[in-house]
Amino acid sequence: MKVSVIGTTGYGGVELLRILHRHPVFNIHSIHSTKEEVPIWNEYPHLYNILENQIEKINFDRISTDSDVVFLATPSGVSSKLVDEFSNKDIKVIDLSGDLRLKKPGEYERWYKKESANSQLIEEAVYGLSEWNREQIKRSKLIANPGCYATSALMGLAPVTKARLIDTESIIIDGKSGTSGAGKALSKGSLFAEVNENFKIYKVNEHQHTPEIEQQLLTWHEGIRPITFSTHLLPMTRGIMTTIYVKLRGQYSTEQILYLYNESYQNASFVRVRPEGNYPSVKEVAGSNYCDIGLHVDERTGRLTIVSVIDNLMKGAAGQAVQNANIMFGFEETLGLEMMPLYP
Amino acid sequence: MKVSVIGTTGYGGVELLRILHRHPVFNIHSIHSTKEEVPIWNEYPHLYNILENQIEKINFDRISTDSDVVFLATPSGVSSKLVDEFSNKDIKVIDLSGDLRLKKPGEYERWYKKESANSQLIEEAVYGLSEWNREQIKRSKLIANPGCYATSALMGLAPVTKARLIDTESIIIDGKSGTSGAGKALSKGSLFAEVNENFKIYKVNEHQHTPEIEQQLLTWHEGIRPITFSTHLLPMTRGIMTTIYVKLRGQYSTEQILYLYNESYQNASFVRVRPEGNYPSVKEVAGSNYCDIGLHVDERTGRLTIVSVIDNLMKGAAGQAVQNANIMFGFEETLGLEMMPLYP
Amino acid sequence: MKVSVIGTTGYGGVELLRILHRHPVFNIHSIHSTKEEVPIWNEYPHLYNILENQIEKINFDRISTDSDVVFLATPSGVSSKLVDEFSNKDIKVIDLSGDLRLKKPGEYERWYKKESANSQLIEEAVYGLSEWNREQIKRSKLIANPGCYATSALMGLAPVTKARLIDTESIIIDGKSGTSGAGKALSKGSLFAEVNENFKIYKVNEHQHTPEIEQQLLTWHEGIRPITFSTHLLPMTRGIMTTIYVKLRGQYSTEQILYLYNESYQNASFVRVRPEGNYPSVKEVAGSNYCDIGLHVDERTGRLTIVSVIDNLMKGAAGQAVQNANIMFGFEETLGLEMMPLYP
Amino acid sequence: MKVSVIGTTGYGGVELLRILHRHPVFNIHSIHSTKEEVPIWNEYPHLYNILENQIEKINFDRISTDSDVVFLATPSGVSSKLVDEFSNKDIKVIDLSGDLRLKKPGEYERWYKKESANSQLIEEAVYGLSEWNREQIKRSKLIANPGCYATSALMGLAPVTKARLIDTESIIIDGKSGTSGAGKALSKGSLFAEVNENFKIYKVNEHQHTPEIEQQLLTWHEGIRPITFSTHLLPMTRGIMTTIYVKLRGQYSTEQILYLYNESYQNASFVRVRPEGNYPSVKEVAGSNYCDIGLHVDERTGRLTIVSVIDNLMKGAAGQAVQNANIMFGFEETLGLEMMPLYP
Repeated sequence: MKVSVIGTTGYGGVELLRILHRHPVFNIHSIHSTKEEVPIWNEYPHLYNILENQIEKINFDRISTDSDVVFLATPSGVSSKLVDEFSNKDIKVIDLSGDLRLKKPGEYERWYKKESANSQLIEEAVYGLSEWNREQIKRSKLIANPGCYATSALMGLAPVTKARLIDTESIIIDGKSGTSGAGKALSKGSLFAEVNENFKIYKVNEHQHTPEIEQQLLTWHEGIRPITFSTHLLPMTRGIMTTIYVKLRGQYSTEQILYLYNESYQNASFVRVRPEGNYPSVKEVAGSNYCDIGLHVDERTGRLTIVSVIDNLMKGAAGQAVQNANIMFGFEETLGLEMMPLYP
Repeated sequence: MKVSVIGTTGYGGVELLRILHRHPVFNIHSIHSTKEEVPIWNEYPHLYNILENQIEKINFDRISTDSDVVFLATPSGVSSKLVDEFSNKDIKVIDLSGDLRLKKPGEYERWYKKESANSQLIEEAVYGLSEWNREQIKRSKLIANPGCYATSALMGLAPVTKARLIDTESIIIDGKSGTSGAGKALSKGSLFAEVNENFKIYKVNEHQHTPEIEQQLLTWHEGIRPITFSTHLLPMTRGIMTTIYVKLRGQYSTEQILYLYNESYQNASFVRVRPEGNYPSVKEVAGSNYCDIGLHVDERTGRLTIVSVIDNLMKGAAGQAVQNANIMFGFEETLGLEMMPLYP
Repeated sequence: MKVSVIGTTGYGGVELLRILHRHPVFNIHSIHSTKEEVPIWNEYPHLYNILENQIEKINFDRISTDSDVVFLATPSGVSSKLVDEFSNKDIKVIDLSGDLRLKKPGEYERWYKKESANSQLIEEAVYGLSEWNREQIKRSKLIANPGCYATSALMGLAPVTKARLIDTESIIIDGKSGTSGAGKALSKGSLFAEVNENFKIYKVNEHQHTPEIEQQLLTWHEGIRPITFSTHLLPMTRGIMTTIYVKLRGQYSTEQILYLYNESYQNASFVRVRPEGNYPSVKEVAGSNYCDIGLHVDERTGRLTIVSVIDNLMKGAAGQAVQNANIMFGFEETLGLEMMPLYP
Repeated sequence: MKVSVIGTTGYGGVELLRILHRHPVFNIHSIHSTKEEVPIWNEYPHLYNILENQIEKINFDRISTDSDVVFLATPSGVSSKLVDEFSNKDIKVIDLSGDLRLKKPGEYERWYKKESANSQLIEEAVYGLSEWNREQIKRSKLIANPGCYATSALMGLAPVTKARLIDTESIIIDGKSGTSGAGKALSKGSLFAEVNENFKIYKVNEHQHTPEIEQQLLTWHEGIRPITFSTHLLPMTRGIMTTIYVKLRGQYSTEQILYLYNESYQNASFVRVRPEGNYPSVKEVAGSNYCDIGLHVDERTGRLTIVSVIDNLMKGAAGQAVQNANIMFGFEETLGLEMMPLYP
C-alpha cells in the first residue's frame, strides 16, 4: 500500500519516515516538500543509504493517483490549503497540523491567529484520538490528527471525565514538552544555548491546544468548564508529560480510580496504566507509541493527580497518525508500531 | 568575621564556599565534615589553588570559640543533632536542613519519617524566609533556612495570600527542580543516564516541603486549606520553577495583581517582578540570589497563574542562608550576594 | 530459537532485550541476574506490559538445556567465571565483557587489574568484530564481543591499516563516549550533576581497550607500534565517536582513501562511508547498528583524519552481539537489526 | 574608568557585561549594537533590574570621547571596519574577533574567506594572550584578543614548545567546545534538537584558529611545522577542552614535564597546573577565568598528552579581554576576575 508524506521540516515528518520504512504494509512511495528537490538524506544524513528518495515538489494529481494515503506533516496554515487540493480526490488524508481540529467557528482564528480552513473540510474531518474515536476513524477519509499536548492530556482525563467523577470547573493541566515539537524552524528560543540548562513557561493561558482539549472533553461531559492549561519547555528533545489536577466529586481511593482506568483502557494496546505508587517518566516511552498513565488521590485535598506521558513525535504526532491509518484501512491498530521504548 | 561550614557532600555546602570566599565581611574559617580529613579540593577539584582549607572533623568547642556563625549544610536527621550540640554555645547557627522548620508536633515525623529535633530548639528557630521574616531573623541566633521548593512557592504566593485575594482551598503548586538539590548521594535515580533526556514526577502528594509551605501560608492567612504540591525532576543541574495556580476571589486584572506584587516586593532587592506578558525562565537566575516572578490572570477561568523561579542552591539554599547571616549581623542584606546570573 | 540473557545491571543487557524482543528468530527464553528475583519491569519500568519475564537466578544446567545461545552482559571479572561454567555444555556463548578478548598472557591482568580467565577459554574465543572476522565467527561457539571504543576505532582504522598506507608509529585515537557505557553502577562520576554541562578525560593512557585495539591491528599489519588512545566522557547518554589521526606513507587524496573504504565495506550493511566533505555525527546512528565513517586527508600535514561513530549500546555492544549470533547460526547478518536511527 | 561594549548578539558581549558590572574600576558607560535601540534587558531578560542601559546605535565620536576603552564583541568581518573608525581616535580598543590576529598577508582571506582588515591595523595590533605577551599588551592601545580554541591550545603547548622538547612535526590538537561560542546566530546546527544528545566534528582541517595557533607557536619555536587541529561540538553550553598530543624529543617523565609547567606558570594567577594523575574537567573552570592544565607522558609511545580546559566565554573571550584591559591600564591582572568556578 502506497503512502506519500508531505512536509519534512518538522521532526514529525521524519518520524513518519522512520515508522513507515519498517511498516509491513505501508510503503513510502514519495516524499514532498516546498523546498528544493534533493535526496532526503541531504536534509537528514541519518537516512544515508537507508532511504533513497528524493524530496519532490508537491503534485496533487500524481500523489492522489499513485498513493492510497497522504500524511500532511505541514505547519498550521499550510495544511488547510493542501487538504483543500486533495478534497475532491480519491485519497485518504491524515493531517498532523491543527488546521482541521476545531469545529466551532471562530475558535481557530482566535487561538491560531490565522485564517481558518473551509468549514466543510472541518466538518468532514474526524478527530483522530485513536483509542476513543476508533469507529469514526474507521469510516473517515480525512483525519485531523490530535495535538501532542492534547493527546497526553485527553488520554489522562478521559476515563474520569466520562465517568463524571470530577468537578467540572476544576481541571488544571500543567504540560511540559521537549523541544522537538517546535521542529527545525529557526528561532532564538530553540537554540541549544537558550534551552539547555534552562526551563521556561510559554504561551501562558494562550496555548492553541486549549480549545482542542476542551472540545473533546465536552463530547465526553457536556458540563466541562474552561480549563487552565500551561505549557513549559523542557531541556530535552523528545517527550511530553502532562500533570493533571482535578477535584473529585465524592470520596474515591486511588485504587478505585485505577480500576476505572484499567477498565477503560483494557483494549488499548498502547496505553499502560501503572500500578498504585508507580508513575511513568518520559524516557520510559521514548521512541514508542505508548501513553503511560499514573495517578494518585490525595485524601488531604480530595484532588486527583494524573500523570500522562507520551513521546510527542510518536503518540503525539507520527505514531498516532500511523495508528489512525491502520484503523482507516482495517489493519491491526498496532501494525508497524510495536517498537519498544529506547532506554536509556 | 569568622564562619564555619559543616557538610560538603551536598552541593549546598560547596555553594556556601563559593559565596563566602568572596564575601567582604565573612571569612571561611573552617570546613567540617564527618568524612576523612582531606584538602577540600580533593573533594572539589574546582577549588584547587583557591581554597587551601582541609576538611576537618567536627569539634563543637573549637568551632564555637573560633567562629561567629556556623552553617549546617547537613542532611535532615543529622542537623538536629548538631544544633543540639551548639545550643548552649555562643555561636549563631543557620541550619539548611528541614530539621527545625516544622513547628507542629508530629509533622516532622509524618513527612520526614525520622525522629524530630528537640522541641525547644524547634520553638527557638526562626524560619528564615528573608524577605518576610526580617525582623525575627535579626533578633535570632538560630535559623531554620527554608527549603528550595518552599522558598520558590512562598515567594510566589505571599502577596496574594496575605491580601486574601484567593480561594483558600484552591492552591496547586506544580514544582520542577534541577538535580543538584539531591546532592552527591549515590542513587540510581541520580545517574546521568537516568536523568538525561528524561523528566519524572516524584513523591506525589508526599513531598516533605508540603507542611512547610502550609505552615508559612497559615501565618499569612489562617484560612488556608491543605495544598496540592507536586515535584518533578528536570534534566538539568540548577534551578527551580514553581508554577502556581490559585482561584481568585473576585475579578482582578493581571495589571492589578502585578501592582500588588510590585508593592509587596518594593524593598526586596532579590525579587524581580516581571512586567505583564513577561515570564522568567530558570536560567535567568542561575548562579544568583534572585527570585523572579511572573503572573497572569486568565479571565476565562478566574484563575491566577504565578511563575516563580530561583536557583535552588542560591536563593533556595546557600544564598538565602548568607542573606540571613547578613540580616542577623545587621549588614546590608545583599552583601556578597550581588553576583549576576550566569547566562547562558 | 531460544535465547538467555545474563546481566541486566548494565544497559547492554536491557538493549539486548530491546533487540531480541523484536527479533524474527531469536526469542527471549529467560533473563538472569545475581539480583533478587523480580519481574524485569521492576528494574526497567519501560518494559511494563511488554516483557513479562522474571529475572531469575542463574542455573547453568537449565540455561544450557533450554536455550540455544546465552548472552553474557556481565561485568569484567564476572563473565570469565560464567563462561567457565558453560564451557563443557552444549550452548553457544557470546560474552560482552572484556574477559576473553586479550590473547597475550599478562595483558588482561595488566590493563584490567583482575585475574585472567583460563587460558583455554581465551584461546577458544573468537573476537567478534563482525565485518572482519565473519568466517571465524561462523565456526565458533564462543565469542568475545568487542569493546565499544575498540569497535569504533577498529572499523575506522581497518582499511588503511590492512592496505599498509600508514606510518605504523603514528596512530592516535581520541575517543569520546556517552555515559551509558558505565551502566547503572553507582559512582560519583556518573551522577547527573557531575556529568551534565561537563566534559572530562579519564584513564589517560590507561584505558583497557588499548591492548584490544593493538592486538587486532597487529593481525592486520604486524608492524603496528603502540598507539595513543584517550577517552573522554560526553554529557550525553548514547554514542561514541573516535577521531583518529594517522600519518600517511605517501601522498593520497581524500578521494583515493574514500575509494579504498568504499571497497573495503561494500559488503558491510552496517557500515556507511560518507561522501567527501560529509562527516557523521553521533546522533545519526543512535539506536541503530550502524557504524558511520567520514575521513579527510590534510595536504598541509600529510595526515589522515578518520571519524567513526557508533551507538555504544548497539554496534558497540548488544547490536554487534546479535549480529554475531546471526552469523553463528547462519542467518542474514542484519536480521532483527534493521532499525533506523532515532532522530532527533 | 569608562567602558563601552559593542556587540551583544554573541554571548561574548553579554559575558563582558557580567564581568564589567562588578569590576571595581571599569564602569559600563554604554552598550552598542547595530540592532534596534531597546533596553538591554529586552534582549537579555536576566539583566532585568540589574542593567538599566539602552542598547545604542554606534557613534564613534561619542564613544571615543566618553570612554577610555571599547570592547568589540562583534563578528569577524565587522570588527575590522569598527577598528578602522576608532584608529585615529584616543581610545583603547580590544577586539574579540579574529580580524586582527593573523599577521601574514593572505592568511585571513584564506581561512576566513573574507576581506582582510587594513594591514597597518594588523601590524599595530598586539595578540592578547595575556600570560605570554604581558609586556607588549601593556604598551599597546589595540588588542587582538585570542580565539577560544587558540587560547586553550596555546596555554597547553607553550611551555613544552618554548623549551623545544617536542618533535615539531607532531602536534595534534583535538578540540571540543560547548555551543555558546556560536552565539545567538540562527542556524539549523545550533538548534537544541540537533545539538542535544549529539556530538559532531566540524570544519575538519579547516578551522580558522589553525593559522592563529601556528603563528603564535612559531614565535616560540621557529621550527614548528603545520599542525593538525580538529574541532567538535559538545552538547553543552560553556567550556572548551583541547586534548593535545605531541611526540617528545627524548625521554622525560610526567613529573619532569609538570615541573616545567609549574615553573612556566608560577606567576600566572589564572593557570592551574594539576598534580600528576589529576586532570581538569570543563565544569571545573565554568564561569571563571581559569585555564586548567593536566598532562601525562606515555612511556609506551613517547608521547605527551596535554589536557587544557577553559570557559570559552571567559578565558576564551570576555575574561581574557578584561584581563588584557587590566594589563593595559596597569591594574592588577586579576581585578574583577576573581570569580570562582560555578560548580556544579
